[in-house]
Amino acid sequence: MQPETFGSGEPSSQHATDAELAELTAFAETLADAARAAILPFFRAQNEIENKAKAGFDPVTAADRAAEAAMRELIGRKYPKHGIIGEEMPEKKSRCGLSWVLDPIDGTRAFIAGLPLWGVLIALVQEGRPVIGVIDQPYMGERFIGYPGGATFKRTGENERPLSTRACGQLRDAVVMTTDPYILTAPELHGFDQIRAASKLTRYGADCYAYAMLAMGHVDLVIESGLKQYDVAALIPVIEGAGGLVTNWRGGPASMGGQVIASGDPRAHAQALVALRRAAAP
Amino acid sequence: MQPETFGSGEPSSQHATDAELAELTAFAETLADAARAAILPFFRAQNEIENKAKAGFDPVTAADRAAEAAMRELIGRKYPKHGIIGEEMPEKKSRCGLSWVLDPIDGTRAFIAGLPLWGVLIALVQEGRPVIGVIDQPYMGERFIGYPGGATFKRTGENERPLSTRACGQLRDAVVMTTDPYILTAPELHGFDQIRAASKLTRYGADCYAYAMLAMGHVDLVIESGLKQYDVAALIPVIEGAGGLVTNWRGGPASMGGQVIASGDPRAHAQALVALRRAAAP
Repeated sequence: MQPETFGSGEPSSQHATDAELAELTAFAETLADAARAAILPFFRAQNEIENKAKAGFDPVTAADRAAEAAMRELIGRKYPKHGIIGEEMPEKKSRCGLSWVLDPIDGTRAFIAGLPLWGVLIALVQEGRPVIGVIDQPYMGERFIGYPGGATFKRTGENERPLSTRACGQLRDAVVMTTDPYILTAPELHGFDQIRAASKLTRYGADCYAYAMLAMGHVDLVIESGLKQYDVAALIPVIEGAGGLVTNWRGGPASMGGQVIASGDPRAHAQALVALRRAAAP
Repeated sequence: MQPETFGSGEPSSQHATDAELAELTAFAETLADAARAAILPFFRAQNEIENKAKAGFDPVTAADRAAEAAMRELIGRKYPKHGIIGEEMPEKKSRCGLSWVLDPIDGTRAFIAGLPLWGVLIALVQEGRPVIGVIDQPYMGERFIGYPGGATFKRTGENERPLSTRACGQLRDAVVMTTDPYILTAPELHGFDQIRAASKLTRYGADCYAYAMLAMGHVDLVIESGLKQYDVAALIPVIEGAGGLVTNWRGGPASMGGQVIASGDPRAHAQALVALRRAAAP
């Protein structure tokens, strides 16, 4: 019997073949291309757009929605049985065990401030587990792609190259990133402060870009809390494909969000968890 | 009598002609080109470089020094009487009232973490007052140039365009940036927290790039403390040329650094100073 095309059949827990995964990874890039085209006209154009538009018009929301709509249309046309979980629109249930998890603009505050650290997040999840992830930075033409067994960096006009996390055996050598110390609760901040004091360097305010730099081997730990599924699903295949790991603050699965720690080296990860476990949600 | 070439004569407080300023602005860009070429090979190449080099080799310092040396050589050749104040090497006294103030890599923590928010800062100061400034971001090919009467944005492959700050009549509408809340003293943090609570959005961790986004009209206030002359001199002509203002936390001159506030609109500036004055250094 001819095997069914991946995702076109009935609900199942079957695993994708290498060829199917390659096709789905290429399709994830097609989605990223569509999001780029939808969002870029709005980036750093807020002032002109707001001046021309009616009061109350929000260009970031407009860019977010335009990108999600473009990606949803492409998915619906090519993979009608795939589910879609997006930040902006209601969930579409999967009829085959596969779903796309989309965050068209992760880092809206960076976007608003003109900083090119926001990104488009695209994940393919199978029975809840992220298997393909794309972090795309349209303004810089940068793309970080993760898939089973590897991760790749592409930049417009440059040769693509593999992503690889770096070794970090000791917390005291770690470059640590987080988004904003003010979003942490008091116990979370206490845990984070211990890591800040023990590490080599801490930096704030990079959203998904922090995870991209971890996958590239320039950052050792990223620590955040309050994440949603669409904030984190795309990051996991990129970081795991580059040799790193992503868990919650107890060391368990992080694919649904919450308190998240990503590391390039399991040794630094284990040391950081000692401080974070005490502040971990039950 | 033939007027002397600007900067080649004896110490004086004479003002530069428009033609001289245009020539010096073009030369500031030549310096930025040289710094770009010196620094870019080191960006995101730390891991490979550290692995190949002897222990203790610091690629950020190497990039910093290479860029400053390249700029000093160009200045010494073309304008031997100009002074040079750089972060990395001893001051060269001016013999004509003009000096270049150089910070080859502002934002070394961003550089180390792979984030493209560091910049090359180049200022020409006349009797201590910054008259020309360049903020250059080599990885993105972005350049923000300020001079008496204007400011310009250039990006590789794009048309250049004027920089202009935006209106912000009320603190509650302001997008505010700072580098790192942990570097502020307790009274400074108290003043800053009042502004954070009153403003629309606060973001951390952008170094010189925050000021560039203010000049471009995407950020309304940048608030920092502990700055040196070479951290701030280049920013002032860019922001003033774009229609904004830069002062210390008392509303006085900021060109030597210290506690600095930059604003796109004098109304938001005045409101922020109410909170900052109480935390201002005497």
